[in-house]
Amino acid sequence: MKYLSGGLEKVPGYRFSAVECGIRYDGRLDYCLIVSEGLCNAAGVFTTNKIAAAPVKLCRERINGPIKAILANATNANACTGDHGYLNAKKLTRDIAERTGVPPESVLMASTGIIGRQLPVEKMMGSHPALVSALTPESGGLIPRTIITTDTVPKQACVSFETRQGEFRIAGAAKGAGMIAPNMATLLCFIITDAPVPKSYLDAAFRRCVDTTLNTITIDGDMSTNDTALILSPLSDAPLSDEHGLRNFEEALHDLLARLSEMLIADGEGTTKSVRIIVKNARSKTDASAIARAIAESLLVKTAFFGNDPNWGRIAAAAGYSGAAVEESALSIYFNDMPLLVKGTPADFNSNSLVDIMRNNAFSVTVDIGLGRSEASMLTTDISVDYVKINSEYST
Amino acid sequence: MKYLSGGLEKVPGYRFSAVECGIRYDGRLDYCLIVSEGLCNAAGVFTTNKIAAAPVKLCRERINGPIKAILANATNANACTGDHGYLNAKKLTRDIAERTGVPPESVLMASTGIIGRQLPVEKMMGSHPALVSALTPESGGLIPRTIITTDTVPKQACVSFETRQGEFRIAGAAKGAGMIAPNMATLLCFIITDAPVPKSYLDAAFRRCVDTTLNTITIDGDMSTNDTALILSPLSDAPLSDEHGLRNFEEALHDLLARLSEMLIADGEGTTKSVRIIVKNARSKTDASAIARAIAESLLVKTAFFGNDPNWGRIAAAAGYSGAAVEESALSIYFNDMPLLVKGTPADFNSNSLVDIMRNNAFSVTVDIGLGRSEASMLTTDISVDYVKINSEYST
Repeated sequence: MKYLSGGLEKVPGYRFSAVECGIRYDGRLDYCLIVSEGLCNAAGVFTTNKIAAAPVKLCRERINGPIKAILANATNANACTGDHGYLNAKKLTRDIAERTGVPPESVLMASTGIIGRQLPVEKMMGSHPALVSALTPESGGLIPRTIITTDTVPKQACVSFETRQGEFRIAGAAKGAGMIAPNMATLLCFIITDAPVPKSYLDAAFRRCVDTTLNTITIDGDMSTNDTALILSPLSDAPLSDEHGLRNFEEALHDLLARLSEMLIADGEGTTKSVRIIVKNARSKTDASAIARAIAESLLVKTAFFGNDPNWGRIAAAAGYSGAAVEESALSIYFNDMPLLVKGTPADFNSNSLVDIMRNNAFSVTVDIGLGRSEASMLTTDISVDYVKINSEYST
Repeated sequence: MKYLSGGLEKVPGYRFSAVECGIRYDGRLDYCLIVSEGLCNAAGVFTTNKIAAAPVKLCRERINGPIKAILANATNANACTGDHGYLNAKKLTRDIAERTGVPPESVLMASTGIIGRQLPVEKMMGSHPALVSALTPESGGLIPRTIITTDTVPKQACVSFETRQGEFRIAGAAKGAGMIAPNMATLLCFIITDAPVPKSYLDAAFRRCVDTTLNTITIDGDMSTNDTALILSPLSDAPLSDEHGLRNFEEALHDLLARLSEMLIADGEGTTKSVRIIVKNARSKTDASAIARAIAESLLVKTAFFGNDPNWGRIAAAAGYSGAAVEESALSIYFNDMPLLVKGTPADFNSNSLVDIMRNNAFSVTVDIGLGRSEASMLTTDISVDYVKINSEYST
């Protein structure tokens, strides 16, 4: 497996376009399209929020059929918009299907932005001729730029991997920034590959890879109504079947998603650093995950990260209220490799060295529970003054 | 039942004192004592955090025996301090017991402040003569001032109620500010009464009242290692036994705790407003509580409150990820009595009027789930830029 520069445009067999439609704001790309040359297998992981946006409902209905295109917009989530919002998503995808000559059920849709407003459908329909005519294989870089909301940089990555049938590529574009929480961890993430992966393997591998990447990052613990991760892989008479090739595919997919996850965390709304929470020696996998999540989502822990405040007591407190088995006398806490608490006894540490660790824009916190052998890991951020500023002004 | 001005000093049969011990900072009251004339029944509700502070362990061991005193300190939590911390709490309470001539097991202790540092025991022992000699019935007002950490105002309240045996009083002092979350909702809360309430009734009534008051408020969703609510009631040969009197006691206790809860929320760290989240017509009581809590703890909802941002979509999203049964088509959301979403359809509301509601320092958000008949309510706050500032600088 190797990393390539660039993004979606590096994968043969797809075309891309984007327009400034003016869905909510003028003068920004806000509407984009990905179309594959042939029909694809698709897999998707969606928000588990019971208030799911209209495009999520649409994707869930269509994801197991043959797919040709992904239509996406930013600035309006088309969530809490009722039957009208759902029919709007259907209408838009049907029109794109007609214009590109593909079956109407083969177009997926994803949206992000403000909740509770109807899409400006006529305006969006009016931009379809331009959207379709602009499709080119070179425009992949427009997709991550278009789906941005409060992200400060577009996020894309590309990898290649070997199989007996030769080299293939996988590329992805993602947007995150706020409302990032495990299950699902990203608002929008589109992955494409030229490797023809059988549908059942694609489903299982995508779920496994998302669970250990996008689903282990958190910025504010809120789960969106619109979280959507999609992958497209061409249907083929000769699908990838050798075990070695499939393993390489999954490994490459995992690395790509891990890389996009790190980019999402590094660009969290108003965040200044990424912190890897590593939980070791918990009594069970469930316990390890619960502890990692409680620490990763604790507002007091995250504000301490922001302030370079080595307040490890807040980490111990979060572990203690996670619901998992935790015993003070067995608990150890490390920042990078510096021990702060060793089996329940506060360590005598150099606070200047600790602040030096915390001043980095990335460091790790290891919490050794000392009661078992299970591990879990999450990637989190600090919560800054700017986070509050950004999120108190979003809809106004 | 009626409200009285003042606090603990209004209840006959108790003496109070406080000193500037210099536990962590000089020049502030940080160590205080409450002593009752006779032996008392006590009841307590403590943190459910598995990392419980040493004084919490001590209280749990002693709470069912006869109690004479509560010793409390601010600025050092005596949490994550191991056996040494526990022995320190024992040593301090034993010394106070000897100096006041009461059994060593009759002294409870509560601490709040930084986690993971040993108490300066010798310094604290050195202040005991002053602490004991300063005890007077008039000094009740010192207690809420002493237990403050980042609170900006001391919190106390007093009520009286009627029984066949005559009028009695209940007074309380509380401190909160950060690490406020349901189960337990306050760091420290001390309640005293001159009503002789039987132990079993005291236990049950205190638990019931705390569950609907201190346990329904949240500031940052973090649960402390030190949360302690205690109540003392004199042992008597003629305990309160008439049903009417006991009912009046419980009603008065509930109102007192509700009042203290409102004070705690109004003085949350860097918060600017109190918001009552009311969930109606949920499928079950558990569902109603889960929805209220998800909304009350959502960082995105709380930052929107701060910014007077009528972003009701974040409220719908939080309800949707609460785990409870929620259906978009049945969901309605109101700010005070103004509908924003009615059975899944966004209402056409006047956004200026809505911002006027949100500019108040207190308003309510009603979420009608429309799927059942169960209700729940929580009191929450906004999260401000100052919250992050305060909490990023706490231990340094």
